[in-house]
Amino acid sequence: MKFVRFLVGSDSAAGILEGETVREVKGDIFTSWTYTGNVFSLSDVKLLAPLEPNSIIGIGANYVAKKEDLPSELPSIPVFFFKPTSSVIGPGDEIVIPEGIEQVKFESELAVVIGKEAKNVPEEDVLDYVFGYTVGNDVTAPQFFREDGHWTIGKSFDTFTPLGPVIETELDPSEVKVEARLNGEEKQNSSTELMIVTLRKMVSYLTNVMTLKPGDVILTGSPLGAEMVGAGDVIECDIKQIGNLRNSFVTANSKVL
Amino acid sequence: MKFVRFLVGSDSAAGILEGETVREVKGDIFTSWTYTGNVFSLSDVKLLAPLEPNSIIGIGANYVAKKEDLPSELPSIPVFFFKPTSSVIGPGDEIVIPEGIEQVKFESELAVVIGKEAKNVPEEDVLDYVFGYTVGNDVTAPQFFREDGHWTIGKSFDTFTPLGPVIETELDPSEVKVEARLNGEEKQNSSTELMIVTLRKMVSYLTNVMTLKPGDVILTGSPLGAEMVGAGDVIECDIKQIGNLRNSFVTANSKVL
Repeated sequence: MKFVRFLVGSDSAAGILEGETVREVKGDIFTSWTYTGNVFSLSDVKLLAPLEPNSIIGIGANYVAKKEDLPSELPSIPVFFFKPTSSVIGPGDEIVIPEGIEQVKFESELAVVIGKEAKNVPEEDVLDYVFGYTVGNDVTAPQFFREDGHWTIGKSFDTFTPLGPVIETELDPSEVKVEARLNGEEKQNSSTELMIVTLRKMVSYLTNVMTLKPGDVILTGSPLGAEMVGAGDVIECDIKQIGNLRNSFVTANSKVL
Repeated sequence: MKFVRFLVGSDSAAGILEGETVREVKGDIFTSWTYTGNVFSLSDVKLLAPLEPNSIIGIGANYVAKKEDLPSELPSIPVFFFKPTSSVIGPGDEIVIPEGIEQVKFESELAVVIGKEAKNVPEEDVLDYVFGYTVGNDVTAPQFFREDGHWTIGKSFDTFTPLGPVIETELDPSEVKVEARLNGEEKQNSSTELMIVTLRKMVSYLTNVMTLKPGDVILTGSPLGAEMVGAGDVIECDIKQIGNLRNSFVTANSKVL
């Protein structure tokens, strides 16, 4: 099932995407919802990010180039970071390059949407707490990374977390391909089998630290191949079973005009 | 005006604290609220954290020992970090030391509560966007800091962000004293004049990166004197004009029993 959020006029609504049809739903998608009876053609609505996340957690440098490169030992403390929910945009929205810099980096990622409160969850039970999956673009301005390792500012600018187009609830995340195309040219294309810290391990680890809540989004890391890009570039982050998340880059100034 | 949240039976409510009396209010404290007419004695209710933050942003190493030590030049990228909202507890609640370690660090801080959406706000206008102030304890397990500078896990454990007891809306934050007493003994006591990045500068900087939202909490850094503490210790973080935030430390095991 593919959950979406969308605009009808100036109002946002939730729905289920079936082919080219959006069936509106109401209620809490994580607990209890019903169809309203309203039906829209996909071409008549503007899709939004498929949820307003409760929080966003990312993991750094989590892919190898090929299976033989997978390390025998995992980091005892993986590189996790938070991104602010204010950085979320939807499919088709513009990614604004901050003033003073010319380029930012795209990073196509499988994004896990948590559906149930989760604390101290063993690896084997992790998927019971997952509502579904979407595509994320962990846009990053490494010019704002501090030399002593603090990434916060470089990942927190408004528009730096495109999500979408849908939350797919029926997906086996263990071997989907995470792709990115820059201006139509393939830049990233790796199976989730190449993750260093697996999805189950990373979610389980996080639940041993903090209580995950419905609506938490976990960005599971980006394959090799991410690049710096500039105004006018168009990035498509893609996972076939979920959909295509397309956004273009603009400078802060061109956004204002 | 001192805003609180509190438990009546098993229900949470908001209120205004006047002396020893809590007057219940309903509505959105940031926009529109009214008195319900219900009045409680402070001694009859359990105070909660005075808000459920939208997000929590902290700043690292932001105090000097004395005014003469204030640097002439500010860091171009201050050390900011996020703490998850799942780490919030209220006055009197127990801070749980994670399994596998014996000690954690307390850090008493002035916490700013944002009241209005804020983007690109100049320093001189920052206070127009502040709803009020509370006391925060930025509990930290440096054993979970990575050597390459990533602090996320070490600051994200459940119970690691005590907030309270009230949000004081009438406060000049420019020279209040941020104090901490460990088992009754003074450990921290510095004026906010000793902040390296001032409150106005830090909030303005953040709004140039991200859109701050009502309910965002900014922990403005901790004076010198924070220490590692263990189970059984009692920490009181205190700003006279706001109130006393008292929490005790327990081990993960003693919490379970």
